[in-house]
Amino acid sequence: MELFDPELILPGWAKDFAEETYGTCFSGYDRMRLAIELAGLNISHKTGGPFGAAVFDRSSGRLEAIGMNLVVRSNCSHAHAEMVALAIAEHRLSSFSLFRSGNSGYELVTSSEPCAMCFGAVVWSGITSLVCGALTEDAVAAGFDEGPKPEKWVEELEKRGIEVVAGILREEAVKVLESYTSEGGILYNARCERD
Amino acid sequence: MELFDPELILPGWAKDFAEETYGTCFSGYDRMRLAIELAGLNISHKTGGPFGAAVFDRSSGRLEAIGMNLVVRSNCSHAHAEMVALAIAEHRLSSFSLFRSGNSGYELVTSSEPCAMCFGAVVWSGITSLVCGALTEDAVAAGFDEGPKPEKWVEELEKRGIEVVAGILREEAVKVLESYTSEGGILYNARCERD
Repeated sequence: MELFDPELILPGWAKDFAEETYGTCFSGYDRMRLAIELAGLNISHKTGGPFGAAVFDRSSGRLEAIGMNLVVRSNCSHAHAEMVALAIAEHRLSSFSLFRSGNSGYELVTSSEPCAMCFGAVVWSGITSLVCGALTEDAVAAGFDEGPKPEKWVEELEKRGIEVVAGILREEAVKVLESYTSEGGILYNARCERD
Repeated sequence: MELFDPELILPGWAKDFAEETYGTCFSGYDRMRLAIELAGLNISHKTGGPFGAAVFDRSSGRLEAIGMNLVVRSNCSHAHAEMVALAIAEHRLSSFSLFRSGNSGYELVTSSEPCAMCFGAVVWSGITSLVCGALTEDAVAAGFDEGPKPEKWVEELEKRGIEVVAGILREEAVKVLESYTSEGGILYNARCERD
């Protein structure tokens, strides 16, 4: 059976980053620092939008996958940071579900709260913990459309056994969003006519 | 720049199907017949769940992309029929957005209403028309979790300029869902522990 390796879509700098960091353990705020660092590197390398994400083993903190926004570069409106990180984690673990009961599951750490699509993807991924930096309102303030999420989206995730915390290192996360728009980065929202 | 070709994830029968049908024009119900046929072929070839989708040029009816559920086969919880079809269409048109104003845009035809994730992906894709066969309640009755969509998800799409019709050839679409579950097909919902 032919399998697609989602790491193939990573730009060169991210492949190097993955090689150097996969398997390392990160605790507490350092997990978010990594997600924000990825967002910043994605801007400085001009490979996409100001969003970074990573999947960690909850108990050991081992880094399983990284992701960053690759929408424009990949010609793919799905290639949000969270989607890339989740797809890579599932591929590396050879499973369509990251679900494990209790503290032995996986955590998705993202530099900004998920959009409407990534919100649904979080449910299907089987992760049991979601940690967000910037809030939806911060992404919107920076010019990004987050799409129509259910009004009580956090509660919807919690009902399904997914712990959610948001606003972790929010100030640093917002700085990255602002630096992207102040430098005139592409806002690849829906309804962008193609060239 | 290295680009991922999402058609690489298609199973052999679907690659042959694409080669034979891409560029052909389909009108009215024939577009839905194609999506339902893809769902049925995905079951008979044992390559995934009972969901098929296709992207058409709205005015000419030209088939631009096909998709089918490849979650289990691909070890990827995102590989829903709609996601596969949209990614392929964007890749083939070399654009992260399928948006064109008026009737010159693109239509996504899907054998079942979109889940919570695909709902968000529909917004980002830039399509201007969504046509669904089976309803959310039909998929749920067949054992599939459709996830937490906003209560008024159809209105949310319409507000963003996306026309939505559902229940087209519903009976045929439901038959395919039922045939999958009656044959004991895998229900790859969230929280499936991996082997």
